[in-house]
Amino acid sequence: MQYDLDKSIEILERTPKVLRALLAELSPEWTTNNEGPDTWSPFDVLGHLIHGEKTDWIPRTKIILEYGVDMPFKPFDRFAQNEISKGKSIPDLLVEFEELREANLEEFKSLNVSQNLDKMGKHPELGEVTLRNLLSSWVVHDLGHISQITRVMAKQYKGEVGIWTKYLGVLQ
Amino acid sequence: MQYDLDKSIEILERTPKVLRALLAELSPEWTTNNEGPDTWSPFDVLGHLIHGEKTDWIPRTKIILEYGVDMPFKPFDRFAQNEISKGKSIPDLLVEFEELREANLEEFKSLNVSQNLDKMGKHPELGEVTLRNLLSSWVVHDLGHISQITRVMAKQYKGEVGIWTKYLGVLQ
Repeated sequence: MQYDLDKSIEILERTPKVLRALLAELSPEWTTNNEGPDTWSPFDVLGHLIHGEKTDWIPRTKIILEYGVDMPFKPFDRFAQNEISKGKSIPDLLVEFEELREANLEEFKSLNVSQNLDKMGKHPELGEVTLRNLLSSWVVHDLGHISQITRVMAKQYKGEVGIWTKYLGVLQ
Repeated sequence: MQYDLDKSIEILERTPKVLRALLAELSPEWTTNNEGPDTWSPFDVLGHLIHGEKTDWIPRTKIILEYGVDMPFKPFDRFAQNEISKGKSIPDLLVEFEELREANLEEFKSLNVSQNLDKMGKHPELGEVTLRNLLSSWVVHDLGHISQITRVMAKQYKGEVGIWTKYLGVLQ
């Protein structure tokens, strides 16, 4: 598929609903366990997605549209969720993400992105990237983290499935 | 986590809602593309989940409870979705899965599984398995296929993210 504004919004507006359907009112064992040391729980991922709404996708889109390669993006903090999520619950984080995403999509639709998909920006580590790269990464990032959350949850029963582990690729 | 009836039902009853939030009214490019030859699209996975509701989890649970190892399970047909899904739409399949899952969970709650988690059954290829193995595999199977669906969708933009592919593990 080639990047398409409407089709990308289809995914971006669904993500908060998917996360709510998946995580709301779930027992804490499902949401706070991870895959082992230095890996993320579903709770951690929610905080990471919130940080992305605040500092990554829309702010970087606006930098490309306004400044192009002349203003490199600020580096993204991969551990910001530790601060963001402190003292919060899954319901808190779901509401926060929903509100941020809704506001961001509203702003996104008001920006003139379709005519500027090949405009370049400067990533602090990756170097030159296009607006198309950034905006398709936003979609892939959403889907990748839903995939991660469900994989992490699946692994909580790794010790219980016995020999079926051979058939359950998600556990590998 | 150890297998727990209530916590497993938490996941099993959410899956149809997650799939609806993710797939309903989505453009066909997102739901019918796959990862390459001999791989499944989200549409294919829905048919596979429907076949599981009809022939796998509850029927096998009842075989273990009634016959134990004396009656091996019937082999599961991994290609049944081709027949099941023929001529149907994503909305058709979502409704069919929802109805089957709801009926199956109702029946599941009426079966005396908690007292029989260590009872053995016979898988046609894997050999002896416990009811606990079967029931935790049902949960892992749901989560694994949600993980797969979102990974398959993410890969549709693999050609668009450019150098960001390095940071997007779901594309590897």
